[in-house]
Amino acid sequence: MADTAYKLVLLRHGESDWNRKGLFTGWVDVDLTDTGEKEAARGGQLLTDAGVLPDVLHTSLQRRAIRTAQIALDAADRHWIPVRRSWRLNERHYGALQGKDKAATLAEFGEEQFMLWRRSYDTPPPPLADDDTYSQVHDPRYAGLPDEIRPRTECLQDVVTRMLPYWYDAIVPDLEAGRTVLVAAHGNSLRALVKHLDGVSDEAIAGLNIPTGIPLLYELDTDLHPVTPGGRYLDPEAAAAAIEAVKNQGRK
Amino acid sequence: MADTAYKLVLLRHGESDWNRKGLFTGWVDVDLTDTGEKEAARGGQLLTDAGVLPDVLHTSLQRRAIRTAQIALDAADRHWIPVRRSWRLNERHYGALQGKDKAATLAEFGEEQFMLWRRSYDTPPPPLADDDTYSQVHDPRYAGLPDEIRPRTECLQDVVTRMLPYWYDAIVPDLEAGRTVLVAAHGNSLRALVKHLDGVSDEAIAGLNIPTGIPLLYELDTDLHPVTPGGRYLDPEAAAAAIEAVKNQGRK
Repeated sequence: MADTAYKLVLLRHGESDWNRKGLFTGWVDVDLTDTGEKEAARGGQLLTDAGVLPDVLHTSLQRRAIRTAQIALDAADRHWIPVRRSWRLNERHYGALQGKDKAATLAEFGEEQFMLWRRSYDTPPPPLADDDTYSQVHDPRYAGLPDEIRPRTECLQDVVTRMLPYWYDAIVPDLEAGRTVLVAAHGNSLRALVKHLDGVSDEAIAGLNIPTGIPLLYELDTDLHPVTPGGRYLDPEAAAAAIEAVKNQGRK
Repeated sequence: MADTAYKLVLLRHGESDWNRKGLFTGWVDVDLTDTGEKEAARGGQLLTDAGVLPDVLHTSLQRRAIRTAQIALDAADRHWIPVRRSWRLNERHYGALQGKDKAATLAEFGEEQFMLWRRSYDTPPPPLADDDTYSQVHDPRYAGLPDEIRPRTECLQDVVTRMLPYWYDAIVPDLEAGRTVLVAAHGNSLRALVKHLDGVSDEAIAGLNIPTGIPLLYELDTDLHPVTPGGRYLDPEAAAAAIEAVKNQGRK
């Protein structure tokens, strides 16, 4: 077994308003629920208990990931560490599904189409119109992005493509500087990173879910390969139970 | 009158646990009270109402300033802006007074000594012992600081000396890049900055207090001189009332 050179912690945001309501969220900037805040605080407690203390934080530009990180780091007494943010860690842009009810979408389009949009690697939903209520085209936080790279919809493959440059250019240098890195992000941006780290196939990634609020520790060797494939959840039992629950989303 | 080239917003943290208890705080990392959280949210609302939307945040390494900024920016929908932190924006290190009751200190040492420690420009309190409960010598957030620059006590002059390099090296470049800069910090680190900006004398700075939670906007010309000396509080009436209250701290 290779030696551990670097420590990387992945943390998916806690429950958001739209998780609770069962709506597709994507780039819509919804807040955490009270449950989501509690999950975040517990995530920070798990970091403390495990003695895994981040030296630097990377987040998306979205409130639910930003606040999850703030609450978790506050609980772990690491509120003072440097913060870096990028749209490249954002959730997958869900296109025309943003703001739509998951159960209603399943009922309207059927199981096959629903699962294709949710879990296929390379089929994005239809693009979101720029004049849609849930478009981010006029959001000031993306004003610096040239129009041609501002997504109107994404499949997971698109997320991998836009996330990886940030991994190589921003996160890896922090790891190589010996810092324990916390990445607080989203279901699909973290799946994209896990796919890369563990070399998960385009097919197998469909079955991989990451639970909310439970830190996932990757110990990496000097080649940035996981010492233990799949990493290690700091609360393995809760993670296993939560993964089951995610699989049933959108179903009554 | 010179033209405004740059916008700088100063925000002193809201009420902390030890503000409420009347204790000297300095580098001790206490949290906000509920009142402090409300002040921070109102600060964010004032930014929104004035249309002064920060593009980048600079904070100290202390929880009360970090959380004030987070709450204010969340209220202003600017939670996603880049964050930079430095110990150089920390509150003045209060030396051996840290953790001591202000009223008891006044009673024990008398008005003259009390005001000398609180408001003289160049007389620091006695240094804090490294084995004191309230020492930060073993705090991991300062582990990267060479021992000889880690303060054991500071007067305001010391704060000016350690704060100004951060002003020139980190804040000014953000202003010159055209960014509206929010500095969320502390009574004395902000007094040090105001002293520099307005060219306040060593004597006159003793009488200058900055109220908590009310954004203070400085519009600066290309030479980084205030277009309006003293800047402009986004709620001038509340600021005037609060300045009076601060003057009476430690008195029954």
